[in-house]
Amino acid sequence: MALIVQKFGGTSVADPRKIKAVAGRVMAYHDKGHRMIVVLSAMAGETNRFIDLAQQMQKMPDPREMDVILSSGEQVTVALFAMAIKEAGLDAISFLGDQVKISTDSMHTKARIKNIDTELIQKHLDEGKIVVVAGFQGVDENNDITTLGRGGSDTSAVALAAALKADYCEIFTDVEGVYTTDPNIYKAARKIDRISYDEMLELASLGAKVLDIRSVGFAKRYNVPIHVRSTFTDTKGTWVVKEDKEMEDMLVSGVTYNKNEARITIAKVPDTPGIASKIFWPISDAGIVVDMIIQNTRAGELTDMTFTVPKTDYDRAMELVEKIAQEIGAERVTGSRDIAKISIVGVGMRNHSGIATTMFQVLSNERINISMISTSEIKVSCVIDEKYTELAVRALHDAFALEMENVPDE
Amino acid sequence: MALIVQKFGGTSVADPRKIKAVAGRVMAYHDKGHRMIVVLSAMAGETNRFIDLAQQMQKMPDPREMDVILSSGEQVTVALFAMAIKEAGLDAISFLGDQVKISTDSMHTKARIKNIDTELIQKHLDEGKIVVVAGFQGVDENNDITTLGRGGSDTSAVALAAALKADYCEIFTDVEGVYTTDPNIYKAARKIDRISYDEMLELASLGAKVLDIRSVGFAKRYNVPIHVRSTFTDTKGTWVVKEDKEMEDMLVSGVTYNKNEARITIAKVPDTPGIASKIFWPISDAGIVVDMIIQNTRAGELTDMTFTVPKTDYDRAMELVEKIAQEIGAERVTGSRDIAKISIVGVGMRNHSGIATTMFQVLSNERINISMISTSEIKVSCVIDEKYTELAVRALHDAFALEMENVPDE
Repeated sequence: MALIVQKFGGTSVADPRKIKAVAGRVMAYHDKGHRMIVVLSAMAGETNRFIDLAQQMQKMPDPREMDVILSSGEQVTVALFAMAIKEAGLDAISFLGDQVKISTDSMHTKARIKNIDTELIQKHLDEGKIVVVAGFQGVDENNDITTLGRGGSDTSAVALAAALKADYCEIFTDVEGVYTTDPNIYKAARKIDRISYDEMLELASLGAKVLDIRSVGFAKRYNVPIHVRSTFTDTKGTWVVKEDKEMEDMLVSGVTYNKNEARITIAKVPDTPGIASKIFWPISDAGIVVDMIIQNTRAGELTDMTFTVPKTDYDRAMELVEKIAQEIGAERVTGSRDIAKISIVGVGMRNHSGIATTMFQVLSNERINISMISTSEIKVSCVIDEKYTELAVRALHDAFALEMENVPDE
Repeated sequence: MALIVQKFGGTSVADPRKIKAVAGRVMAYHDKGHRMIVVLSAMAGETNRFIDLAQQMQKMPDPREMDVILSSGEQVTVALFAMAIKEAGLDAISFLGDQVKISTDSMHTKARIKNIDTELIQKHLDEGKIVVVAGFQGVDENNDITTLGRGGSDTSAVALAAALKADYCEIFTDVEGVYTTDPNIYKAARKIDRISYDEMLELASLGAKVLDIRSVGFAKRYNVPIHVRSTFTDTKGTWVVKEDKEMEDMLVSGVTYNKNEARITIAKVPDTPGIASKIFWPISDAGIVVDMIIQNTRAGELTDMTFTVPKTDYDRAMELVEKIAQEIGAERVTGSRDIAKISIVGVGMRNHSGIATTMFQVLSNERINISMISTSEIKVSCVIDEKYTELAVRALHDAFALEMENVPDE
């Protein structure tokens, strides 16, 4: 008998029929003797409807009031879900973020969980109930409703699992798990059976959208095993767990790409102390997130500064950078929207040299030019021309033999 | 400078455009220096949508979970409303029932308000904000969300006005006030300028749907003046206030009718002690509300028992009553759906005799047969054939000269 947290996203609870199907799934677990906590998102489409309504009222909707509206979405699904369970003859009870209570900071629309009371949930579990908790929402110290931002329900689920010391947390989604690369780009992509928290963190931060990155961070900190799997099949998904020996034997776990960034280069910048902060302070002040930064020092005292920003912020960033370039006496500014970032991720890299070199070689063999490189302990990222994205993904996937089952299934 | 509570119903906040219009109205009051509290319902149609969703999950939706869903409706409107105010450059803040907090008993879907904390609202009023409160909802001692039932937002508004010692409470609706009778039936109907709490209580209980009857009870107990008026015009509406001398000078304030009842007669009931409870216990046990009851003792020891039940419960009630009649040895059961209850209401009746007689005479002149009569201190009701409803209303309205302006406008 395990204590299990199961999270279902908006597409899994999009209408009454789907809610009933999901309830059936949860009850099957309950019947086996497990203690069940269910975390739900709003019905698919509701969040966008609310944002649209809000923007009709206020150009920049007030964040506190936005959270009051947004949080009403899960409020509806948890109650409908509890009703479905009760109709089937089992007992259930729904709780909102402030009832549980899930305490957060006061950063409305992107709050962070600080603490979760477990007493109320524990009490109702002890009474044999299936406990249904609204994901994505919490309450701050002013008793104001907060929301955790897109993907926040994953974080709610993992945080609840951590607080309640659940055996594991299952995240049900519309794909069957985490893949070695995007199956839409390369059919040879293989579902990964087990992946470490660190690898998943890299994959999530690089654009793999299966799991919200904050939930992986929580899971790592509190060592909560996560099982990412499909709502619509019974197939085993991907377990995100603590790193183990087997994982280290695999050099690369996955190849990922991100087409949402644009590149900006400031050429021939005088290389004086404090120049980087002169360039990047106005950009971050404008709320633009800079991802990769590389600096190539040229001969003499001039340097080239290249960095990436979200494509959606490219025009604003260019405008700012043109101004800055003039002020600091740089020669010129160039940039491109047509870039992609290709990354390989794997904990095995820690103990093996030559992985990055292999990557560069593979790309070079395909005559793909690399314009930026960045690395971490378990990741290598290269910025290339956007049009070579698919080619690069396939070539790297083949080169690191990801289509094969490297780790024997336990 | 007054402290004013204004309540707007679902049709007044049905879409973003209407919410903005209402916000403009409230801000005009604020600009004049008044301290404003706004109570809102869910957007028109939302409650029915929620009930429909719930019934798809559970044949008899769990009341606690039903309240979780229902209360999300006002949650959306109060936040949108606060945004509209902020967009216009004033300050506003929204509160839900549990935030205020509006404490109720635990009778889900029809809870009663027990207490309202005023501290939080007072604080934000003092800071110059327009305070927007979700109507219709509260919280019980388990921290569970409760709702007050249809029309509950009127009660929220009046209860808030009472708790905060507001100068008055304005209920905005889709009619211009309380009329001497239904203007759809008789064009001579006149808007009443001032009416007493007791008269309004009678009118509300007799089927005039302008104000929820519980809100009038609250207003009477705490002496809160209510101004019932139209959302869509600036016209002065009807003030519901403490009885005064002028009102007593008016014999009748209004004529009302109710077509939602059906009549059942048990003929020749043995007139033994306890017979009434034998008849009515099973009916009330089945959740059927009996309205009027009359008993005509015949010569000897037999009596006729006639009473009314809601039309929607007529079939169930007849089935029960047939069984009871056999058990108690009554001769037979008859009944009719085609009845209407016509009532005249006025505090002046207390001090004037002959009002009821005039009513009977007027109906008799029109050859309308009266099958049941019931009276209170300030009301006379007659049950007649449904088809004469309009004729009776017009005749009584004329007879008591209600089309004239009896009370001079102040």
